[in-house]
Amino acid sequence: MESKVGRLLNQINEPNDIKKIDPREYRLLAKEIRQFLVHKISMTGGHLASNLGAVELTMALHLCLDFPNDSLVWDVGHQSYTHKLLTGRKEGFDTLRQFGGMSGFPKRSESNCDAFDTGHSSTSISLAIGMAKARELKKEKNNVFAVIGDGALSGGMAFEALNNAARLKSNLVIVLNDNQMSISKNVGGMSKYLGNIRTSTNYTEFKEDVETKLRKSHIGNALADSIKGAKDAVKRLFVPGMLFEDMGITYIGPIDGHDVKQMVSAFESASKMQKAVIVHVCTKKGKGYLPAEEDPSAFHGIAPFKPSDGTLKNKEKYLTYTYVFSRKMVELADKDEKIVAISAAMPSGTGLNRMAERFPDRFFDVGIAEEHAVTFAAGMASKGMKPVVAIYSTFFQRAYDQILHDVCIGRLPVIFAVDRAGLVGSDGETHQGMFDISYFNSMPNMTVMAPKNVLELEKMLEFAAGFDGPIAIRYPRGKAYTGLKEYDTKIEYGKSEKITDGVDIALLAVGSMVETAVKVRKILLQHGIDVTIVNARFVKPLDEEMLSDIGRNHRYIITMEEGILTGGFGESVSHWYQENAPQMPFIRNIALPDKFIEHGSVEMLKKKYKIDAEGIAEKIMDFTGALYQ
Amino acid sequence: MESKVGRLLNQINEPNDIKKIDPREYRLLAKEIRQFLVHKISMTGGHLASNLGAVELTMALHLCLDFPNDSLVWDVGHQSYTHKLLTGRKEGFDTLRQFGGMSGFPKRSESNCDAFDTGHSSTSISLAIGMAKARELKKEKNNVFAVIGDGALSGGMAFEALNNAARLKSNLVIVLNDNQMSISKNVGGMSKYLGNIRTSTNYTEFKEDVETKLRKSHIGNALADSIKGAKDAVKRLFVPGMLFEDMGITYIGPIDGHDVKQMVSAFESASKMQKAVIVHVCTKKGKGYLPAEEDPSAFHGIAPFKPSDGTLKNKEKYLTYTYVFSRKMVELADKDEKIVAISAAMPSGTGLNRMAERFPDRFFDVGIAEEHAVTFAAGMASKGMKPVVAIYSTFFQRAYDQILHDVCIGRLPVIFAVDRAGLVGSDGETHQGMFDISYFNSMPNMTVMAPKNVLELEKMLEFAAGFDGPIAIRYPRGKAYTGLKEYDTKIEYGKSEKITDGVDIALLAVGSMVETAVKVRKILLQHGIDVTIVNARFVKPLDEEMLSDIGRNHRYIITMEEGILTGGFGESVSHWYQENAPQMPFIRNIALPDKFIEHGSVEMLKKKYKIDAEGIAEKIMDFTGALYQ
Repeated sequence: MESKVGRLLNQINEPNDIKKIDPREYRLLAKEIRQFLVHKISMTGGHLASNLGAVELTMALHLCLDFPNDSLVWDVGHQSYTHKLLTGRKEGFDTLRQFGGMSGFPKRSESNCDAFDTGHSSTSISLAIGMAKARELKKEKNNVFAVIGDGALSGGMAFEALNNAARLKSNLVIVLNDNQMSISKNVGGMSKYLGNIRTSTNYTEFKEDVETKLRKSHIGNALADSIKGAKDAVKRLFVPGMLFEDMGITYIGPIDGHDVKQMVSAFESASKMQKAVIVHVCTKKGKGYLPAEEDPSAFHGIAPFKPSDGTLKNKEKYLTYTYVFSRKMVELADKDEKIVAISAAMPSGTGLNRMAERFPDRFFDVGIAEEHAVTFAAGMASKGMKPVVAIYSTFFQRAYDQILHDVCIGRLPVIFAVDRAGLVGSDGETHQGMFDISYFNSMPNMTVMAPKNVLELEKMLEFAAGFDGPIAIRYPRGKAYTGLKEYDTKIEYGKSEKITDGVDIALLAVGSMVETAVKVRKILLQHGIDVTIVNARFVKPLDEEMLSDIGRNHRYIITMEEGILTGGFGESVSHWYQENAPQMPFIRNIALPDKFIEHGSVEMLKKKYKIDAEGIAEKIMDFTGALYQ
Repeated sequence: MESKVGRLLNQINEPNDIKKIDPREYRLLAKEIRQFLVHKISMTGGHLASNLGAVELTMALHLCLDFPNDSLVWDVGHQSYTHKLLTGRKEGFDTLRQFGGMSGFPKRSESNCDAFDTGHSSTSISLAIGMAKARELKKEKNNVFAVIGDGALSGGMAFEALNNAARLKSNLVIVLNDNQMSISKNVGGMSKYLGNIRTSTNYTEFKEDVETKLRKSHIGNALADSIKGAKDAVKRLFVPGMLFEDMGITYIGPIDGHDVKQMVSAFESASKMQKAVIVHVCTKKGKGYLPAEEDPSAFHGIAPFKPSDGTLKNKEKYLTYTYVFSRKMVELADKDEKIVAISAAMPSGTGLNRMAERFPDRFFDVGIAEEHAVTFAAGMASKGMKPVVAIYSTFFQRAYDQILHDVCIGRLPVIFAVDRAGLVGSDGETHQGMFDISYFNSMPNMTVMAPKNVLELEKMLEFAAGFDGPIAIRYPRGKAYTGLKEYDTKIEYGKSEKITDGVDIALLAVGSMVETAVKVRKILLQHGIDVTIVNARFVKPLDEEMLSDIGRNHRYIITMEEGILTGGFGESVSHWYQENAPQMPFIRNIALPDKFIEHGSVEMLKKKYKIDAEGIAEKIMDFTGALYQ
């Protein structure tokens, strides 16, 4: 295949190189960047639609800013591909999101032009205010820009930041990249408000026209006189974005986010004011690549595809836990009208789109607002409903206090469907679902479960639907495990399930680790070692009867979980034996280490951190060496 | 002392009894309620200023609502005393906030007129939307009201809720209780905006006046014609609260929050609309009791005082960790200009007011916005500053993801000053600082410390100021421990400190538990048992050398911490021995149990949960019984 690096893009090899490009060629450069992105991402997979939408915006930013002196904070950060391209990381796209390769998010370790390692939503304004304040205090001169999507603006922290932005005494430019979407279509009052601004007539012209009229008229003057604070009130009439102005932030916009010159001019004006300024830029997600324009949701994060028509290269269909959850939810909701479902801006990612179609009145997408999602659920649960909140493990972190304070204290029947629990792979440090066991486990009144296979997920959901208290069910991303279907005993509160009966060594496995335990057993059998496998089913409460039995009959106990060690299932099991066993068995806790896990395929990462079958079998043989050598 | 229950208040013994009172006597009733509150709280201590401010507001709500059919959600909930009084809980005030007595917050277990157990800020709108939605789905008819302070409105979740409120198809009344304060004076753009509304001229009159003028004039018509969506734009000119209207929520106000009739009329109009409505009510914190009006901050939560002049009954002055922190911060900031301090609406509670006075440019009160506080700190730290974020343990929970995602991933040097860590006493379930060890402990790149006494807090702050990475220092509420001053070896990263050398039994104690360990030792010595005491200093990382030494020389190891067991110091220590000890010692982990801890004095609670010296000594003797009997 011929090189996809166009003539202009070929001239951009270092930060600030874009400034050498003839302005008349900006449109061509944008086209080359889009071709490059479509070509590269079609091979590696990655975030496409958001990046295609932000090409001109990023060009304009790079024309105004001086890297690495200036700071540019990308909210979430998945839309930073053009930024990577313009800062000398063309080659990185061959290994995008792969183990050892370039990250799909900004990374300070990758380039000094990346101001911050981001990944979660709605953080950029807070970060940028902090950077601007540091600059003030250090009496330095440089620019701080934050780029935030309208979707991220529905997250409460963005509002907390806006509420504090007006107090800056120096410049901060907040670029509001308004594409009317987060991953799915945006919702809520703020979104509607921005929509109203977008669809209004040309405000700038209009404003001038009316001001002239006012100045010429008696009534205009009288009107102005009779109003206390007339300037603000008149402004209110003619200026869009008064919501921001009311909070003390200057608003500029709306501006065409695909017109480089218009943006450069706006950014330059904005950066001259000694205060916080919002520049409202309207872009189109997926811009310039028809399949992505037509279905930006599908092209948000995408697997390798055929550039010609956007269809996926790998047509292999496989069952996911998300799909099974999606299907089961509808079934449960059909049987029990108390069941409602809540998503935080991810109806399709979590599979709740099916619920949304079937029971639109009982499905709620609250936007990127995990805190509200959980407490809203608590409110419904307190009035007899049975809410299911489906959020990825890494994003449930954002509602820690709401789960603890609003759901657990009152022991309310809210079901937490913890999707993408465990390693998620190519999104890296910011997105691994490795903390949920630990924080759910430490919350009083909480029940925590994890299914070994798809069938068990269904059964657990049934169980949860009939359970009167907070309950979390965690399940992994990707291809679901369909083995061990013959093990399908009834789910009973706090009871585990025995899979195989061995001698001396027992593997107590949580969720995805049951499949791994089966593989570990096979490897050990080759060495003549047979082991007991227990599917824990419940992380909390522990199955004390099982622990007692296993403790009596086994010398070695291995706990296995796909989550961080500290505060996890393993430590709970060890503690139980410590307090209750007549004689302490030898225990090893297999879990993720006390570090952030980088991007790469889940398979690679499991291997690296020795939580794949081979790694675990090896550890077990080391551990029990005395016994079997 | 004569009874302080006035004639009218005496007639109110059950929910809805207030409706029998002659409206001409409302002012007298309000006075009686205030007398009652001042009298009772002067004896028990409690939240005073906020309750005095909300007397008429609560009366108006009770005149409009029908309890327990209707739902009234108090944000935070410390302002619910009049509500308790009007729902038949007069007697409860004799045992307010005491062990076994009436809670200072709404409690569903206490009355079916309490819609939800609250305690943390900014949750009420989300809860109320949930309740209103449940009502819609169940096709029931009743009122749902939320009362939220302007301070709580700076919390992001309140905005997430407002952003979703416009989508309701049935009524929800959000009463904005605007007293221009949270615990301290409010800050931020929203606060300024509300202030502008409050100080404007009478909008209702004004609006009519200008509308008449507009209707009479050509220009007015022309102006109206030339505006697309003229109605909204004109409204924008004359109606306060457009910020809320822009988000799709009807705004009514501002209304005098001490005028019962005006409020009743507003609430009744508001409750008739089939959508979310904000009623903006202006109140004065501390109203009707001069000492509280003059210093509402001091009377937010107050100890028993003399009603005559508001001075505290117990004049005993004692040193607190907060004070020592406060003093040390100024000293450190004086030496190092990179040090800055951040508070989330609690400059005096955290002791940062001293920093605010001395270095106003380097102190930031961000409002009730813990998420922003942490990520703002991360932004500053990424640019070379050394931010200290001082927040109570229970409120740091609200920034779990920000600590993990924005600070720990980048290993940024942010100092978390975790005040009120451990049991806090009379605020109960929602406020105990019992989870911080567990969640900080599970975060990669985090260092966690706890001082045994005031001197060590100072040394730890010095250490943290020179440390390059995220670091949390937890210290308790109340009287600080000043003993063991002779133990003052230099703080070294990850190193513990040995206090006494005993035999067979070692106590590894964290922070406040070192003082307890000394007492435990005295008790055990009476039984002829001498013990080793180690001050852990670091919860994370563990002092492996010490653990190894202790493990060799002791048969019994007791860990002691004032925090929840799961994921805490004890489990980490047990795990370390499990993985590293040639022979596993016998271990017991003293910690708080897996349950929410009710209100009561810290002393009582420690006794009940057996984490006081006597309880621990008893446990140790049981445990080591075989050895010493």
